[in-house]
Amino acid sequence: MPERKPPRGRDRAKIGGPTRAHGRKSGAHRPPAGAGEAGIWLYGVHAVRAALANPRRRCLRLLATAEAGQRLAPAPPDGKISQKPVGSPPAIETVARERIDRVLAEGAVHQGLALLVQPLPQPGLRELLVPRSSAQDSGRRVVVVLDQVTDPQNTGAVLRSAAAFGAAALITTRRHAPPESGALAKAASGALEYVPYVQASNLVRALDALKSAGFWCLGLSGEAEPNLAEADPGGPLALVLGAEGPGLRRLTAAACDVMARLPTRGPIDALNVSNAAAVALYELLGRADS
Amino acid sequence: MPERKPPRGRDRAKIGGPTRAHGRKSGAHRPPAGAGEAGIWLYGVHAVRAALANPRRRCLRLLATAEAGQRLAPAPPDGKISQKPVGSPPAIETVARERIDRVLAEGAVHQGLALLVQPLPQPGLRELLVPRSSAQDSGRRVVVVLDQVTDPQNTGAVLRSAAAFGAAALITTRRHAPPESGALAKAASGALEYVPYVQASNLVRALDALKSAGFWCLGLSGEAEPNLAEADPGGPLALVLGAEGPGLRRLTAAACDVMARLPTRGPIDALNVSNAAAVALYELLGRADS
Repeated sequence: MPERKPPRGRDRAKIGGPTRAHGRKSGAHRPPAGAGEAGIWLYGVHAVRAALANPRRRCLRLLATAEAGQRLAPAPPDGKISQKPVGSPPAIETVARERIDRVLAEGAVHQGLALLVQPLPQPGLRELLVPRSSAQDSGRRVVVVLDQVTDPQNTGAVLRSAAAFGAAALITTRRHAPPESGALAKAASGALEYVPYVQASNLVRALDALKSAGFWCLGLSGEAEPNLAEADPGGPLALVLGAEGPGLRRLTAAACDVMARLPTRGPIDALNVSNAAAVALYELLGRADS
Repeated sequence: MPERKPPRGRDRAKIGGPTRAHGRKSGAHRPPAGAGEAGIWLYGVHAVRAALANPRRRCLRLLATAEAGQRLAPAPPDGKISQKPVGSPPAIETVARERIDRVLAEGAVHQGLALLVQPLPQPGLRELLVPRSSAQDSGRRVVVVLDQVTDPQNTGAVLRSAAAFGAAALITTRRHAPPESGALAKAASGALEYVPYVQASNLVRALDALKSAGFWCLGLSGEAEPNLAEADPGGPLALVLGAEGPGLRRLTAAACDVMARLPTRGPIDALNVSNAAAVALYELLGRADS
């Protein structure tokens, strides 16, 4: 991607503040809120298989129907994650489907599999922003930031797209955002095991920390003038999206270096937030790479 | 968009067959399966408001909480749909939230609104493929084709993206696809009122009819070699997507002129089908237009 001029109208250097206070408050290694001592139940083939293959994931119990237990046997086809080197996976407890129904929320599409796990240790923002070695940093660094998107299905789908296009992390608010949960992991289809999921206590301070670390902060809004392809400043970038309806909060938008829109038209002008994230990640990461 | 060479390897002229038999079977003006005589309940602010504003939609009853009824007052902000010129909208029946819960499926997020409607008269394929006048046909014609995508949330989200990027229609299979329903309309966020939703009895014959009408049929598959931007032949196009997991059926893929992939990478290589559709529509319609 060619070097682009920085977006006009904002003095980049003035925006980024020191990150020290922020880093301390961003919750390094703290398990996400909402996960009890007893752990959380993951479910569905992709989510369970990815968790079992993740060496960083502590798995406590595995319930499976006879049929689903057999489907667990093959390793993940991508070979990108080694089989769990430490700790032993829990023995499969072969049970009736109804037994699994009872441990999950009503209507959970579990495909005959439920895995009780400890929440993942998630990095703090400060760790996330440590400069990478050139070997690790083979592509453009883009993180997705969600401003009070409460729905676990949408947030999980964004994690999945983040994994598919190689985004470095998903950052959400600590409040008004879903904790690590079965519904989130199911929608993420395994991506919760790969993509750091960081919950920031104060999103504006998180954006300031990102800017200090050299990221541009680009907010999506249907009311912005330039479209994303025009507005993309290149280089490390935080893509900031708000919830459907309210959009970005005022202070979140003010903390962005540049606002851009997706080129939608017609009578329905707003995409579902997970679709907007997927389209933007394609523009920022997928298209340039192809 | 510059004129491109047709994709290699298939003789375009041999593929399209006559559309007469197909057109007759494609269910012109037949209401979608699954909608009883009593009508279907739509719910949620966007879906209900769009249905009320659609002159082609016959609305039978409107239940609203006192609070939600007040929110209905303003007309849709885009002004693209005129207020309903014929028939009178049903009077608002102001009810308690629990009354609305009872008419809907459990867990439906209705935002205090439920509207009983007759299913929309949907065009048959033949009507859809009638050449447009230049006034109507201001942009590229792209239709989305879903091969046995059963989930109404995903299908509704595809309708929404189709409306946002200006796709001409969504074509699904008659079986193994959701009928017009409240869940579909909710996920479509109003787009069900704008985007023709055609259920084809035989998808291969539908693709043949599209080809005879001058559309290229482009299937998405993670195993294809060229990426979408490279493979796009330009001009009228049917974008064909399969369900997650099984993907396109063999005969559906064989009926496509060209197969392409989205440029995903990393350990999770498949997007959610609605995200894949949104990304592809952005590439085909949004990006070129911006």
